[in-house]
Amino acid sequence: MKKRNADSVIELKNTPGIISSAACVGKTEQEGPLSEYFDICFPDDGIGQTSWEKAESELLRTAVETALDKAGLPEDEIGIVFAGDLMNQCTASTYALRESNIPLCGLFGACSTMALSLALSALVVDGNFVSRAVAAACSHFCSAEKQFRYPLEYGGQRAPAAQRTVTGAGAFVVGGKSKDKVIIPRVLIGKITDAGITDTSNMGAAMAPAAADSIARFLNDTNTAPSDYDMILTGDLGKVGSELLKDIMLSDYDIDISTVHNDCGLLIYDMEKQDVHSGGSGCGCSAAVLSAYIMKKMKEGLLKKVLFAGTGALMSPLISLQGESIPSIAHIVQLNFGEE
Amino acid sequence: MKKRNADSVIELKNTPGIISSAACVGKTEQEGPLSEYFDICFPDDGIGQTSWEKAESELLRTAVETALDKAGLPEDEIGIVFAGDLMNQCTASTYALRESNIPLCGLFGACSTMALSLALSALVVDGNFVSRAVAAACSHFCSAEKQFRYPLEYGGQRAPAAQRTVTGAGAFVVGGKSKDKVIIPRVLIGKITDAGITDTSNMGAAMAPAAADSIARFLNDTNTAPSDYDMILTGDLGKVGSELLKDIMLSDYDIDISTVHNDCGLLIYDMEKQDVHSGGSGCGCSAAVLSAYIMKKMKEGLLKKVLFAGTGALMSPLISLQGESIPSIAHIVQLNFGEE
Repeated sequence: MKKRNADSVIELKNTPGIISSAACVGKTEQEGPLSEYFDICFPDDGIGQTSWEKAESELLRTAVETALDKAGLPEDEIGIVFAGDLMNQCTASTYALRESNIPLCGLFGACSTMALSLALSALVVDGNFVSRAVAAACSHFCSAEKQFRYPLEYGGQRAPAAQRTVTGAGAFVVGGKSKDKVIIPRVLIGKITDAGITDTSNMGAAMAPAAADSIARFLNDTNTAPSDYDMILTGDLGKVGSELLKDIMLSDYDIDISTVHNDCGLLIYDMEKQDVHSGGSGCGCSAAVLSAYIMKKMKEGLLKKVLFAGTGALMSPLISLQGESIPSIAHIVQLNFGEE
Repeated sequence: MKKRNADSVIELKNTPGIISSAACVGKTEQEGPLSEYFDICFPDDGIGQTSWEKAESELLRTAVETALDKAGLPEDEIGIVFAGDLMNQCTASTYALRESNIPLCGLFGACSTMALSLALSALVVDGNFVSRAVAAACSHFCSAEKQFRYPLEYGGQRAPAAQRTVTGAGAFVVGGKSKDKVIIPRVLIGKITDAGITDTSNMGAAMAPAAADSIARFLNDTNTAPSDYDMILTGDLGKVGSELLKDIMLSDYDIDISTVHNDCGLLIYDMEKQDVHSGGSGCGCSAAVLSAYIMKKMKEGLLKKVLFAGTGALMSPLISLQGESIPSIAHIVQLNFGEE
């Protein structure tokens, strides 16, 4: 592993905490194993809107509103919101927050966006630049299929290695440290890894090397081992990518993460019964799983230390058609519960 | 003006400074009045690449490389790079930085991206999260026309109020404070303003109210007046938007900025001789003007205090076709020279 001179893992001295979180999802996600954890399950993927893009936007708007409600905070108590999605020009986030009065930083990190927004929220709170920040991300199966692959009406067959973009959104309110909160002691911003994969139906394979690079750098910099964490959670490598990650970690870095690894793309759907190919993906996948299921398990004390590695495949349909391979990235946020 | 409880202007106690900056541009920009200030002027807009998208990417790669060279720093001394562009899924930035080893935060702020990346770079350096950061942004006339309007081969006529997307990129290396550097004492993250404009050929009009809101909030929060600055520089409202901004500031906020206002979109082209309609726009416009011309004038002591308000129109072609109006945003970075 090439060593960087500049710091990789960023230690947060004031360890910002998660004040509240909320998740909103669509129908297929409601039919999966985590439905009881989500705050709002919409009965159909139209989300009461006239286009898939507006539906995606409404998911994010609802998640942010719900997270603020749960925190008991009006929006003008929030100093900054970091938000992103998969839509061209990040329109889902922009239109979701158009009516709000919160200063907005638009992000693009593909499926790594939830980790990126959470990491940056933690930084601005830790640095006392704002008292509270909101981190949010979303995606929608129908808008993503239309933009990245084929409109649903075309009835295209999806490849076995393809992941299903989650219809969902997650939002976190991040603020000062507190004993009874999940805190963020460390973050790592990922760098691009390009394994030369050109098959856009196999993004798990494209992202696995980026996840491996970031996880190995994190463990190396912090002098910790996989056994120091209750879970190393990737989001979202799916079935193909998760197997690859474990193989790469073992073969290239001599690190065995198999006993503590899980993936948001495998958790959100019933991989046996639901027709989701290699599992879930999209900014909304890890956003919904982390903000609902993982937060609940942490607050119950069932998970005390989690490394959340959000992974993203950063290509566009156009640049893929020009023959370029898929650059990938993974940002890491460490989450602790029950410690000072 | 609706008052927020959460802080708007962020004061940077360690006042990070600009170690170096670089700008690369295309042919039309070289033919404009600022050509002597740019580091690299490419003789044609193909930038030696096989597609407009790859050309845009190469502009950014060259700007970052040149800024690092001017700073005398290898890339592994940079803790983080904040970069963005106008391309779908921010591919210009991603592919530009694919070979680099620098941790990447992808941003989307449309034409406000340079201000957003500079503001976030200043924050992470000020908070001591990294020793040095790079802020970068780019755009390309041909890739933007193809994606947002018509392919050039179509020969479409552009509306009089339309701005010309600049073929250019700018990059800044941000690090610790120093006496002989341009420093960043304050930043303000913008919130969305939507004036209901649906004409995507008139983005200056859509963005002017966002610029007015951010500038008024900044002056109000810091208890300063336009006369306290040598320049209030918007990027990029063009001719139509700049006139509107001055009108709105006067009518809605009772603030006269006319004596100190200038706009990157008006500076980069010869508005009399070049066929650029309402002036320049695109992430690369303010990136190139600020990193080359403004930095030079500041280091010469001709400008000592500049408010740089990067403005962005956050719509997508798809959401505009669905009838939605254009949400806009303006982020502000204060730049000082010659003070402790």
